[in-house]
Amino acid sequence: MAKDIVVEGGGKDYHDPPPAPFIGVQELTKWSFYRAVIAEFVATLLFLYVTVLTVIGYKSQTDPDMELDQCGGVGVLGIAWAFGGMIFILVYCTAGISGGHINPAVTLGLFLARKVSMIRALLYMIAQCLGAICGVGLVKAFQSSYYNKYGGGANELAPGYNKGTGLGAEIIGTFVLVYTVFSATDPKRSARDSHVPVLAPLPIGFAVFMVHLATIPITGTGINPARSFGAAVIYNKEKAWDDQWIFWVGPFVGAAAAAFYHQFVLRATAIKALGSFRSNA
Amino acid sequence: MAKDIVVEGGGKDYHDPPPAPFIGVQELTKWSFYRAVIAEFVATLLFLYVTVLTVIGYKSQTDPDMELDQCGGVGVLGIAWAFGGMIFILVYCTAGISGGHINPAVTLGLFLARKVSMIRALLYMIAQCLGAICGVGLVKAFQSSYYNKYGGGANELAPGYNKGTGLGAEIIGTFVLVYTVFSATDPKRSARDSHVPVLAPLPIGFAVFMVHLATIPITGTGINPARSFGAAVIYNKEKAWDDQWIFWVGPFVGAAAAAFYHQFVLRATAIKALGSFRSNA
Amino acid sequence: MAKDIVVEGGGKDYHDPPPAPFIGVQELTKWSFYRAVIAEFVATLLFLYVTVLTVIGYKSQTDPDMELDQCGGVGVLGIAWAFGGMIFILVYCTAGISGGHINPAVTLGLFLARKVSMIRALLYMIAQCLGAICGVGLVKAFQSSYYNKYGGGANELAPGYNKGTGLGAEIIGTFVLVYTVFSATDPKRSARDSHVPVLAPLPIGFAVFMVHLATIPITGTGINPARSFGAAVIYNKEKAWDDQWIFWVGPFVGAAAAAFYHQFVLRATAIKALGSFRSNA
Amino acid sequence: MAKDIVVEGGGKDYHDPPPAPFIGVQELTKWSFYRAVIAEFVATLLFLYVTVLTVIGYKSQTDPDMELDQCGGVGVLGIAWAFGGMIFILVYCTAGISGGHINPAVTLGLFLARKVSMIRALLYMIAQCLGAICGVGLVKAFQSSYYNKYGGGANELAPGYNKGTGLGAEIIGTFVLVYTVFSATDPKRSARDSHVPVLAPLPIGFAVFMVHLATIPITGTGINPARSFGAAVIYNKEKAWDDQWIFWVGPFVGAAAAAFYHQFVLRATAIKALGSFRSNA
Repeated sequence: MAKDIVVEGGGKDYHDPPPAPFIGVQELTKWSFYRAVIAEFVATLLFLYVTVLTVIGYKSQTDPDMELDQCGGVGVLGIAWAFGGMIFILVYCTAGISGGHINPAVTLGLFLARKVSMIRALLYMIAQCLGAICGVGLVKAFQSSYYNKYGGGANELAPGYNKGTGLGAEIIGTFVLVYTVFSATDPKRSARDSHVPVLAPLPIGFAVFMVHLATIPITGTGINPARSFGAAVIYNKEKAWDDQWIFWVGPFVGAAAAAFYHQFVLRATAIKALGSFRSNA
Repeated sequence: MAKDIVVEGGGKDYHDPPPAPFIGVQELTKWSFYRAVIAEFVATLLFLYVTVLTVIGYKSQTDPDMELDQCGGVGVLGIAWAFGGMIFILVYCTAGISGGHINPAVTLGLFLARKVSMIRALLYMIAQCLGAICGVGLVKAFQSSYYNKYGGGANELAPGYNKGTGLGAEIIGTFVLVYTVFSATDPKRSARDSHVPVLAPLPIGFAVFMVHLATIPITGTGINPARSFGAAVIYNKEKAWDDQWIFWVGPFVGAAAAAFYHQFVLRATAIKALGSFRSNA
Repeated sequence: MAKDIVVEGGGKDYHDPPPAPFIGVQELTKWSFYRAVIAEFVATLLFLYVTVLTVIGYKSQTDPDMELDQCGGVGVLGIAWAFGGMIFILVYCTAGISGGHINPAVTLGLFLARKVSMIRALLYMIAQCLGAICGVGLVKAFQSSYYNKYGGGANELAPGYNKGTGLGAEIIGTFVLVYTVFSATDPKRSARDSHVPVLAPLPIGFAVFMVHLATIPITGTGINPARSFGAAVIYNKEKAWDDQWIFWVGPFVGAAAAAFYHQFVLRATAIKALGSFRSNA
Repeated sequence: MAKDIVVEGGGKDYHDPPPAPFIGVQELTKWSFYRAVIAEFVATLLFLYVTVLTVIGYKSQTDPDMELDQCGGVGVLGIAWAFGGMIFILVYCTAGISGGHINPAVTLGLFLARKVSMIRALLYMIAQCLGAICGVGLVKAFQSSYYNKYGGGANELAPGYNKGTGLGAEIIGTFVLVYTVFSATDPKRSARDSHVPVLAPLPIGFAVFMVHLATIPITGTGINPARSFGAAVIYNKEKAWDDQWIFWVGPFVGAAAAAFYHQFVLRATAIKALGSFRSNA
């Protein structure tokens, strides 16, 4: 049947931008590069600050041992909104400066698809991790009496789930997020529905919201190694470090799978390569 | 009075695309067709995975027998958000690949309106059902200890409601969804408000959200035969199978009614046909 | 100081459409007019069906007398979402057919601003009231065992509030809604920010959501005479009829105030009239 | 390394509007100026009315001393939605009239960035404070029996937090808001993604929503001096006045920091000035 497959293409109404340089040393000479790194640092700081403060505030207001109103906090739904909503506004604010990654897994996915260079990917990841540490540090400074008591916002495997489940939940969750990122920023899409990029931060934020609704009971939901790492550094308890690898391996595998799915299945890079091979034969 | 009715038309500023071929065998030769089927499979898998995981996670955290915090989960509101929000992001992501149906009832409605061919409609429905089974299967694999205990995310008629009520709720719920789909993708609308398609996934997702708010207490809310079928296959309890027909007949009747309402009342196909008949006489 | 006021204007980049005819008898000859009336009927039916079903379903799942999980329903927040979200999707779906009023107060405001004719306004209001009765009737048919027990979704003044407070709450609430409607559909705005109409249904839906958050504890929130009337007809208890006038007078006064504020203050019709008078002198 | 930094620029595809006049006396002669001040007054009145009514209504329905359903209100999540959602619709409605500040901290940030003149900034702030007082006054008139009992919607430092924490929370919260405002209204951004301004009110509203999720447990969340001042004037209890300075200093410092970050880091005004200096040398 493969013989019958018609490869679409020819007169395309969109341009795939050329792939980013693999190493990208020359980016180090531009101010806009450093500005982008600063923007990633600040955005990840604000992301962790708001979200972990929401988590700690919620737990401090619903502690059954303190005879408080058990429905008094924003709820798990509010926590999921905090993560998704912050990603929405921060992607919106930083998209024009740095691309709005705020997440090493997103950066990895875009690097694998040759959208960013290796130098840029590495510096973004470092900036994201430092920003996350500073953001959680601010929460600890503000909430010293509650921070350690209520788990420090760290990602840990919940009791009753094994490591394979946690890893699987992180992989699929990150797949959902990075698949949405690729779909929202696809230049083919922009050409067809000319104003879709306008909306891109909203579905990306919703993807984060959705994954939190589903996997907060399992891992607390990482899908962002910087978020998990920053909380682990400041909380610094054994359990958080023991499970830490799950929150790096899972998101990186999920992001790679989403990049593969988008580039080779949906964009049909492999088939196109085959098609151009045959037409040369 | 019919004599006085003025049929609008003439210089139209939009094009109704020609109806899709009825059978559509030639689509089988295009890679883009298989890609669309794969995209429907993956999207329905992710839809069921996230939503059923949210349902099971919510129930496992609010079980009154386990002396847990009864307000500790995402709530019924969170479940409704999970279904609506996932449809928002998945329609957004797959609209350009497959049209973003993710629901056999939507596919049926678009087939009845001659927007997709019969071959495409059938393969989409098969892909959706297989995707749903895989998605719920993943949840069972991850949540083995809780999955069966908390109802498996299956659609069943709640105690105290008869089958007619359940069927009616499914019909009207699917009518709301498919009516929104038709309104959002109407080419007449696109011509008038040129960028409305940009927003289309958002009201479609909200329609799903709204119907879940209203009918979760009655049927758990199907309005998507693939969703109900996938959960029934994996859960595989008698009650889920006994009520299964409601979740196929209801959505298909509702989708057909919405297609009829949009094509014959709002788009006035019948009146226009009458008008052209008289002007020929 | 009036002498110093500079009247803006002159080369305008937008067109105010000519005012609608006052009576509008000739509209009765167009099919598009009847189609619009049908669309208002169907939309109001779906609006009341989904929202009142949500209210009854919520109350049936959280009744403290039945030893149910008190957090088991969608919550008051879910009810507010149901009202706001349905208005969002229904305005989105019917905007191109009928203008998407779904509310006699909105119709009155647009009539006062000469956006619709008197004939159209009257028939819309009748269609909205009939649609509301049918929508609530469906809920009663589906929920016979619960409908009367849980208040029938009727608007009544809560204990502890006097009629003046209820009336004030309805006036201001409707002002917020109709002010948003005018802002979202202002042709001056469309000219300046060319794609704002795209978003119009979203802030209109949010306005309804917000007002419900604020005034559900006082009146259950009407701000829509058709909604209050439909529920009163089907519920048909004395208290609902005794307070009924509040839910007509309040929304109509609020809508008129919003029309006045938009036309005479924000659009400065009065000042412009004065300016043109003086330049003729 | 500074030597290697390449300053971008040259053929720009956007225009920074000229800075607003510093004093701006001549604005006093235009009707559009007074209209803008009126719009700010009305918008802030509606903002405080809806949000404080939501707060009081929530507390009156969940008071544990009154044996009510403790989950019966809209929840803290509903309160956060009320603040964020109202800002979304009011910015949407007033953006074309006054710029849609509704917040003295936003006005200060835009004044520091030379987007509005000093006269306009002062009159906006006065209008916002008067509007806030009237809005809270309406709530007290409607809810006389509950208003004082449930804290009057006033911002106060929660027990267990020191003044430094409260001040820090207000500074960072306002930074998030004003940073979003600058990003959403940046003319550079509009040129690049031509329809982004369409969406601007949505992320601004979400920024308010997010900050409320995070800091309601600490200060009740001010990030708007007019909101805190209006509630303090009507509530008029010692504690609200004692902490009042936090809700002026914090937001003003946060807004100034965001203006600095946007103008000097993201827009690189400083570097550009340096670059132009060197190219002249």
